[in-house]
Amino acid sequence: MTDWGKRAAAILDELSKCSQPGPGVTRLPFTLQHRMALDVLTSCMKAAGLSVSLDDAGTLIGRLEGPPGTGTFLMGSHQDSVRQGGAFDGIMGVVLPILALERLQQDSVELPFAVEVLAFADEEGVRFPTALIGSRALAGAHDAAVLDMTDADGVTMRQAMEAFGLSPGGIASLNRDPKEVIGFLETHIEQGPILESNDRAVGVVTAICGIERHQICITGETGHAGTLPMAARRDALVGAAAIVSEVNRMGMGTQDMRATVGALYVVPNMVNAVPGVVRLTAELRSSQDAIRREAGESLHRFAQQISADTGLKIECDKSYCQVAQPCAPELSADLENAVIQSEMPSMSLASGATHDASAMAKLCPVAMLFVRCREGVSHRPEEFASPKDMGAAVRVLAAFLASRR
Amino acid sequence: MTDWGKRAAAILDELSKCSQPGPGVTRLPFTLQHRMALDVLTSCMKAAGLSVSLDDAGTLIGRLEGPPGTGTFLMGSHQDSVRQGGAFDGIMGVVLPILALERLQQDSVELPFAVEVLAFADEEGVRFPTALIGSRALAGAHDAAVLDMTDADGVTMRQAMEAFGLSPGGIASLNRDPKEVIGFLETHIEQGPILESNDRAVGVVTAICGIERHQICITGETGHAGTLPMAARRDALVGAAAIVSEVNRMGMGTQDMRATVGALYVVPNMVNAVPGVVRLTAELRSSQDAIRREAGESLHRFAQQISADTGLKIECDKSYCQVAQPCAPELSADLENAVIQSEMPSMSLASGATHDASAMAKLCPVAMLFVRCREGVSHRPEEFASPKDMGAAVRVLAAFLASRR
Repeated sequence: MTDWGKRAAAILDELSKCSQPGPGVTRLPFTLQHRMALDVLTSCMKAAGLSVSLDDAGTLIGRLEGPPGTGTFLMGSHQDSVRQGGAFDGIMGVVLPILALERLQQDSVELPFAVEVLAFADEEGVRFPTALIGSRALAGAHDAAVLDMTDADGVTMRQAMEAFGLSPGGIASLNRDPKEVIGFLETHIEQGPILESNDRAVGVVTAICGIERHQICITGETGHAGTLPMAARRDALVGAAAIVSEVNRMGMGTQDMRATVGALYVVPNMVNAVPGVVRLTAELRSSQDAIRREAGESLHRFAQQISADTGLKIECDKSYCQVAQPCAPELSADLENAVIQSEMPSMSLASGATHDASAMAKLCPVAMLFVRCREGVSHRPEEFASPKDMGAAVRVLAAFLASRR
Repeated sequence: MTDWGKRAAAILDELSKCSQPGPGVTRLPFTLQHRMALDVLTSCMKAAGLSVSLDDAGTLIGRLEGPPGTGTFLMGSHQDSVRQGGAFDGIMGVVLPILALERLQQDSVELPFAVEVLAFADEEGVRFPTALIGSRALAGAHDAAVLDMTDADGVTMRQAMEAFGLSPGGIASLNRDPKEVIGFLETHIEQGPILESNDRAVGVVTAICGIERHQICITGETGHAGTLPMAARRDALVGAAAIVSEVNRMGMGTQDMRATVGALYVVPNMVNAVPGVVRLTAELRSSQDAIRREAGESLHRFAQQISADTGLKIECDKSYCQVAQPCAPELSADLENAVIQSEMPSMSLASGATHDASAMAKLCPVAMLFVRCREGVSHRPEEFASPKDMGAAVRVLAAFLASRR
């Protein structure tokens, strides 16, 4: 009997070698490493009986044909990694559904619909300042302007895609007909510690969190740290410290919220100068838009209060907002049943990170299956999902597909 | 009758043109601009009847001879500026004593001792990563190793001094015999707002503050801002914010203390990553060493408490310590009497900044006269001391010298 977890681990190990030199995995879209990974995935897809093609957005597609006139169920994730990232983020969500289809064929299960496994070129947005090109193309949300964006070497995305053998002009016609798509299921490592701390191999995602980001600029006045009396100061970093503490307090005190000041810059940033300007970003995430919005408004009120108390000028700019994307209840219920059918306790959780499923939700119902990762670590070389947990996920995916009639 | 304030303003205006192009004054040691400034100062010194020489540390010396066998009283400050600094910091303390000597000669006052006015080459330490070369040489504290330090263009200080016509090998023998030096008086803009807010033209410095600096490294754990639950975080920036607030609270709540977090760096400093490491500097200054020391110990205790409460690793390294330098009581009392004699209310204050007087204190008793500067601004093009206040300082310096018998 095939050990699907070991198979998955072996394939992911081979794929991890499709990487630039250095620690961990660095596999950017439309590069030699991308090409090598597609070769490995193509072999796997063919071994599972899938017919393989590459669309003009660089998405590798392995298709298992269904009876004539039936719709197509989509599965998959992205092939690319961050710089010096791990061997599981994204690519594991391509490998496991391929193995699930192979398993179903071993078991002689015939599905009453077609299935496609997709390996999107770019979800991380590391090489170009955009992301999700493959999933957006399928959902009809392609913006041709991104093709003119350049990487650090000045190469445009269009040039990079053409050199990869693609015809970027064809992306605009990749959009799928919603009537022919049954749904999209993405499998992904959790990238957090919740499954591990609850002793679960897999979990069903309820929603992909909404995100808002605030650029906050605090302007006081710089001066000599030796000569400027304390009472005469307007120290921008002291104001910033109050905001950092408040953002953390809000996150700690609110159910279903994550609140982070991740980036902070001090000007002039000298040991003997009172900070004159601090720029920071506050990021708020929640699977419930109302909670996130209320936190954002509360943050703006807090900043105004600090400004009134200290004489600091504080400008808050809501620079980014992405609403929460609930997963489709029907698909998620089926996925939960498949977990139970696979003799595991079921668990639901929200996704704090964005995924290809966010873009695919514009096309069709989406669901996500999270797989436990060690210590919640992701985007680092130490990223790890165990063969046993991946094997469990293959069982769940196979059961999910087999249960759909 | 000569308007000494207007004379000072005119000379300083001429000196301000001895600058690299750009806003304000940029005059670094051993440069064309330094040479041009020495030419202007030489003319002024000669007009005041001083004999002029340049020592091997680049200090311009204008000497008024005294009766045979008498000691020498030293006055002066530095000729150099920071980049895009002002026209008064340092150089004003060279010009005003020259004018005071000229005034005494106009009034036919003969001093029973020699006087030298000194224009030190480098106090700011902007070009090379060292400072106070001229005053340290006189005090016998020259360290020949600094001659091998390089500027941003890779030029060593030795090369720069030789190109300027100096023999750096001679610096080691510039040290003065303490028995032949009566004292050192430095005149300087306050660089702070205290005289202005107390409506005083000048003030007598009680002490140059001691300084200690702490490098604080806070190590938590980075992670994805969307996937890492609040309760599982060890956010280094949240710990840093508590320390920034505490440093400010200590400064605000302690008499005779200035406490500043001036520099702070976040790693990885990305909008969507929980900060894993923060490095910051805390600087404490007081004219009383006991107060400063107690604050430093209290800061270390606070950091330990934060570490215990949060699980963050916090390393505090006291990286720099300079004890307070009290001014000589006898000289300072004479200076105060000279202020009163010049029909001005007297005021005492500490110096938060370091000066050439700090180095000269190793050689002889030192005193400092501060001159009001507009809005406490210094090290910026807007730096300004009024002709009226400079005229008052010339009167005080002349009265001080004339009173010494």
